[in-house]
Amino acid sequence: FSCKEVFHHIAEMEMDALIIGPTFYDETVELCRRMDDRDIPYIFVDSTIETTHPIAFFSSNHYVCGNLMAKLITSLIPENSKIGMLQAVRTGNHSANTTILRKKGFMDYLTDHKLDHQVLKIPFSVDTPENNKKYLSRFFKSHDDIPGIVIMNSRGNYIANYLYNNKIKGVKMVCLDLTRPNVEALKGGKIDFLIGQEPEYQGFYAMKTLLEYLIFKKPVKKENYVQLDILTRETIDYYKKFNNIVY
Amino acid sequence: FSCKEVFHHIAEMEMDALIIGPTFYDETVELCRRMDDRDIPYIFVDSTIETTHPIAFFSSNHYVCGNLMAKLITSLIPENSKIGMLQAVRTGNHSANTTILRKKGFMDYLTDHKLDHQVLKIPFSVDTPENNKKYLSRFFKSHDDIPGIVIMNSRGNYIANYLYNNKIKGVKMVCLDLTRPNVEALKGGKIDFLIGQEPEYQGFYAMKTLLEYLIFKKPVKKENYVQLDILTRETIDYYKKFNNIVY
Repeated sequence: FSCKEVFHHIAEMEMDALIIGPTFYDETVELCRRMDDRDIPYIFVDSTIETTHPIAFFSSNHYVCGNLMAKLITSLIPENSKIGMLQAVRTGNHSANTTILRKKGFMDYLTDHKLDHQVLKIPFSVDTPENNKKYLSRFFKSHDDIPGIVIMNSRGNYIANYLYNNKIKGVKMVCLDLTRPNVEALKGGKIDFLIGQEPEYQGFYAMKTLLEYLIFKKPVKKENYVQLDILTRETIDYYKKFNNIVY
Repeated sequence: FSCKEVFHHIAEMEMDALIIGPTFYDETVELCRRMDDRDIPYIFVDSTIETTHPIAFFSSNHYVCGNLMAKLITSLIPENSKIGMLQAVRTGNHSANTTILRKKGFMDYLTDHKLDHQVLKIPFSVDTPENNKKYLSRFFKSHDDIPGIVIMNSRGNYIANYLYNNKIKGVKMVCLDLTRPNVEALKGGKIDFLIGQEPEYQGFYAMKTLLEYLIFKKPVKKENYVQLDILTRETIDYYKKFNNIVY
């Protein structure tokens, strides 16, 4: 799959520094090892990987994000009811490391609060999206009593619209990332809670930090966790993106 | 009551401009009338009053805030159950105008969503706080089956701590304003959802707008609604106050 080649290509480029979104675990570890060898500083956005040596990272605390999603969905649905959880499958890769952390946070929250929900995986393919309708119709045929669904990647709108188009009603949705289609679904009442992770802030501060480090030799704060913004249909119109703030 | 005298005093002071938090309706209307006569510009923070002529206001949409509080509390409690609502009483004054708007937003949400909750007023005195314990113990003796409470002013922590100290358990709380005691109560698990209204942002931008208007004659945007931030125990530690943002 192509990311290996791209990472290999990147590792050989001329550069002063690198900003990495480490979705792919093994490939990122290898890329970082080569950056370390070449003494090239790098910063992570979106998530971090423990065995590497970035000068800084800007990321959600994905474990806490999973906690939060569990709190929100369990507040919306009856006790002891089932919860659907989207399980994204990528070829040649275990789940993205962010998803693993979020899922652990989610399951730990249920355990810690002695909540007895059966969590059912909804299969979803990133590589063969043409199969997803089949997966979903099969899933919802055999489980027509699911009161709530959590989506731990940014594809919430896909499921929200599937439910809407197939007239499957009364399913509460807690989703992630303020993509345009997700925000549309939130405004349309198809998503109940949407969580934002300040991507603009992450990108802006990653770049700012690198420039200050390279040019002004400023000291760098390594661990930078961003806000987890909880948005609803009621609040989204008042939400200021980082872009609008004067800096 | 003393605010009348203060407002009267303010109306006669030398000044270039004024920032007003219009908690008291009649007194504010009178003050604004006198500012208009003297051609002195003023800006509102916290809320606005329709019959006056501020050059701008920085405020929550309090009606939407009421909608939001209704959404949050009804997501936490069983259908058809009772909801407690703090009713602050001030001498010689109908409720603060913000509370009236929030309450209307709250009740309209219930109606619009066909939700059948009985809303019970919890009496609370701002002027004679020594009576509040008596009020509360009387209230909770006659209503020991209330699963959720909303507090539409900033005194949420008072009720949250009352419940905690009197071992009244299992009551969900949705409260307003990120005061230090409220944030403590949120962190301690005594408040479930706390809503922030960016007070630092309101004050900073009110001042900035006035200075730019007076000194640089910049055009002013009149209606400025701030964010409604939904905070939980999980997210509060990652919440950056406006203070921390570089501007």
